[in-house]
Amino acid sequence: MSGRVAVVGLGPGPAQWITPEASAEIEAASDVVGYTPYIVRLPMRAGQRAHASDNRVELERARLSLKLAADGATVAVVSGGDPGIFAMAAAVFEAAEESRAWHALDIAVIPGVTAMQAAAARLGAPLGHDFCAISLSDNLKPWAVIEKRLKAAAEADFVIVLYNPASKGRPTRIAEAFAMLRGLKSATTPVAFARAVGRPDEKLTLTRLGKADVGAVDMATLVIVGSSETRYVPREGARPWMLTPRSYGAAR
Amino acid sequence: MSGRVAVVGLGPGPAQWITPEASAEIEAASDVVGYTPYIVRLPMRAGQRAHASDNRVELERARLSLKLAADGATVAVVSGGDPGIFAMAAAVFEAAEESRAWHALDIAVIPGVTAMQAAAARLGAPLGHDFCAISLSDNLKPWAVIEKRLKAAAEADFVIVLYNPASKGRPTRIAEAFAMLRGLKSATTPVAFARAVGRPDEKLTLTRLGKADVGAVDMATLVIVGSSETRYVPREGARPWMLTPRSYGAAR
Repeated sequence: MSGRVAVVGLGPGPAQWITPEASAEIEAASDVVGYTPYIVRLPMRAGQRAHASDNRVELERARLSLKLAADGATVAVVSGGDPGIFAMAAAVFEAAEESRAWHALDIAVIPGVTAMQAAAARLGAPLGHDFCAISLSDNLKPWAVIEKRLKAAAEADFVIVLYNPASKGRPTRIAEAFAMLRGLKSATTPVAFARAVGRPDEKLTLTRLGKADVGAVDMATLVIVGSSETRYVPREGARPWMLTPRSYGAAR
Repeated sequence: MSGRVAVVGLGPGPAQWITPEASAEIEAASDVVGYTPYIVRLPMRAGQRAHASDNRVELERARLSLKLAADGATVAVVSGGDPGIFAMAAAVFEAAEESRAWHALDIAVIPGVTAMQAAAARLGAPLGHDFCAISLSDNLKPWAVIEKRLKAAAEADFVIVLYNPASKGRPTRIAEAFAMLRGLKSATTPVAFARAVGRPDEKLTLTRLGKADVGAVDMATLVIVGSSETRYVPREGARPWMLTPRSYGAAR
């Protein structure tokens, strides 16, 4: 088998966040596979085949990519953000595991800027210290696991990043998560909602855990809940900086 | 004040991982500030001023950048990886907080590929599910905080990423961390040591928690400790893939 699959991270949106490696992989591909909105915005060259598909069919998309590569194609599977962080890479390796024939394929992951990095960059330095990233989607894991992780993250005083905080199918998950966190953390904890960072409808909301309105949180929003050390640096006439300092407690 | 400071992420090393935005910020800068090894490898253009400094002087470097910008300069502070993740961004905002005059400066953070993303890309999809990132450096926080976080991370069954796992000044920290994790997690838990990913001396070590030799871990190494769901996918004649599947436990 001479084919290749590159799982390519496109970052959060704008071309300025697409690495040269990612651009080169897309350019070199005979076949580009991905969720329709990603495919549509790529500049395809003549002779390249596009395979656009719906959301929530990650495994099917992964299998198609592996089949094409097994037939000799050079495939780029495009993924939002970083493919390795709540995106396409895991689905591709899960699919590759299914067939011994696919084990011999050359599968590469091309890293990209993930939503939490873009959001952090806009806000200041909220991830300046230890943090954790939790997906609130309970499609593929029990809600009890999410609750356990939120509790542990609060008790260990991590900065907490929440991916996939809401969807039409489960609009109340973010509210449940915040209800739990409010019982475990100070009401004054800085909280940021970073929506569609890097896209024309980008919106940043800086609030506090006690008064945060989770009604504004949708699937395009990344949520960052500070640690006990996270603070806002107020500025005259400008948005405060959100800062988690490098030092912690008694070590300062 | 008309100056600007961009805190620019250079990624783990190779040019293929430097975003177009990062390249543009460096090109546009009148002054480039950074740790000497980063400065040395940058292509500087005529008229650009370079300010190279030693490691472990992040705050001084940050203050110099802010001073230059306050005098009207367009400054690029270069940082390895992503400036927002255990790198220069927090130091710059901590320094900016010190002087009200600096609050008015335009400070931008330019995200980059951080070590954990490069390592994950090489290994397969070890970060395919919830994870946490902990710096083992106890220069700026008490070791007791690190212990508490390792314990919580193990109990919540996060994939655990360890930055700054060792140094000449504290070579035993990684051994202490592993001794603790061995009491909390299965001996068969997949563990990867990813050293200098993207550089000529890159080295990947795939092992298990029970038998991992932490003697091989140095400051250029990123450590990934799997969750209970992380597994190696064996392949004939090739390195196994390290995979943390998207599903968890009973939800499968």
